[in-house]
Amino acid sequence: MKKGLFIVFEGGEGTGKTTAIDSIYNWIIDNNLNCIKTREPGGITISEQIRQVVLSKENKAMDARTEALLYAAARRQHLVEKVIPALEEGAIVLCDRFVDSSLAYQGHARDLGIEEIMSINKFAIGEYMPDISVLFDLDPQIGLERISNNDCREINRLDLEKLDFHQRVREGYNIIFENNKDRIVKIDASKSKESVIDQIKNILKPRIWTNIN
Amino acid sequence: MKKGLFIVFEGGEGTGKTTAIDSIYNWIIDNNLNCIKTREPGGITISEQIRQVVLSKENKAMDARTEALLYAAARRQHLVEKVIPALEEGAIVLCDRFVDSSLAYQGHARDLGIEEIMSINKFAIGEYMPDISVLFDLDPQIGLERISNNDCREINRLDLEKLDFHQRVREGYNIIFENNKDRIVKIDASKSKESVIDQIKNILKPRIWTNIN
Repeated sequence: MKKGLFIVFEGGEGTGKTTAIDSIYNWIIDNNLNCIKTREPGGITISEQIRQVVLSKENKAMDARTEALLYAAARRQHLVEKVIPALEEGAIVLCDRFVDSSLAYQGHARDLGIEEIMSINKFAIGEYMPDISVLFDLDPQIGLERISNNDCREINRLDLEKLDFHQRVREGYNIIFENNKDRIVKIDASKSKESVIDQIKNILKPRIWTNIN
Repeated sequence: MKKGLFIVFEGGEGTGKTTAIDSIYNWIIDNNLNCIKTREPGGITISEQIRQVVLSKENKAMDARTEALLYAAARRQHLVEKVIPALEEGAIVLCDRFVDSSLAYQGHARDLGIEEIMSINKFAIGEYMPDISVLFDLDPQIGLERISNNDCREINRLDLEKLDFHQRVREGYNIIFENNKDRIVKIDASKSKESVIDQIKNILKPRIWTNIN
């Protein structure tokens, strides 16, 4: 049985990942390919329950290591219940966030160390890594402005962090990008929505059709 | 400032830990010493929320690694919010379960490996280990009968595991005991409640009074 394709979308808050995933999903489905879109933390019942705990604005006392372990737990459950079965059926899986989020947010921005965060995530994901990761790179000042203008988006605990934190997230993503250029493609998320989606289609086209046909 | 004493109670289901902790707590308080009793997973708001997820009977799909990461997350938060501040005040902390539970349940009984479970727990607890761990050793057949006769105890997801699982938990605890005799004291939990409490008092007396005076 042909193995599917695991495509992950990464980046800070307000970089436009969710909107782009919707467009890319429709584009793939319109081409009659088997595709699912999902998100982290969440995507299935147990992981949505964990999402509630980790993102609740009430949980201000949450320690950075607790946060990192909760993300790894939600990731594990989502992977075994949703991502792996879909990949085994040969589907293209579009996932909003995966392990690089933990490396950038907890590893770099919260200063727990990228290596240390990778080690607890190895426990969670084993050998499952994305085939391609699309990194949305954007000045966090612009990202946070976009969020504050988006009435549909519920503000969570991480959105409430100061600008400096989000700048460190971006910096973390760029460190991870520099060390994983074989897997991660960085796009300029300051461009128009249409331009961003075109950039992504051009990146994915050769991978999707080589993989499927 | 004098550091407190971190005393942990470990063992399978229905071994009588909770009842014994109540008695030991009253005995210490009656001696006018600063003491708190607490439990894992739980003890504080965030960890009780995690407890809900990890022990819910509805969450049958939970993967063993997800479970291990959730326990480590709850442990971390409970440690930093409740245990460490109490120890720093010089209190005697009586805790129902700590890292040995994860080693016995997820490491041995769920076959994830004691070493591997220790490594994610090291991320959670750093250098904090109990000063003394009291291991309640009991044939799980007797333990499960006690639970089924106890109307006050809510049955959770782990109670529903088969006898074979609980036998592996006991086996796991005994492996950990053999490798940590400097820290763990094993007691025979098949004896009467009074006899068990006397055994524990005799173990704790020299440690508590040496520590406090």
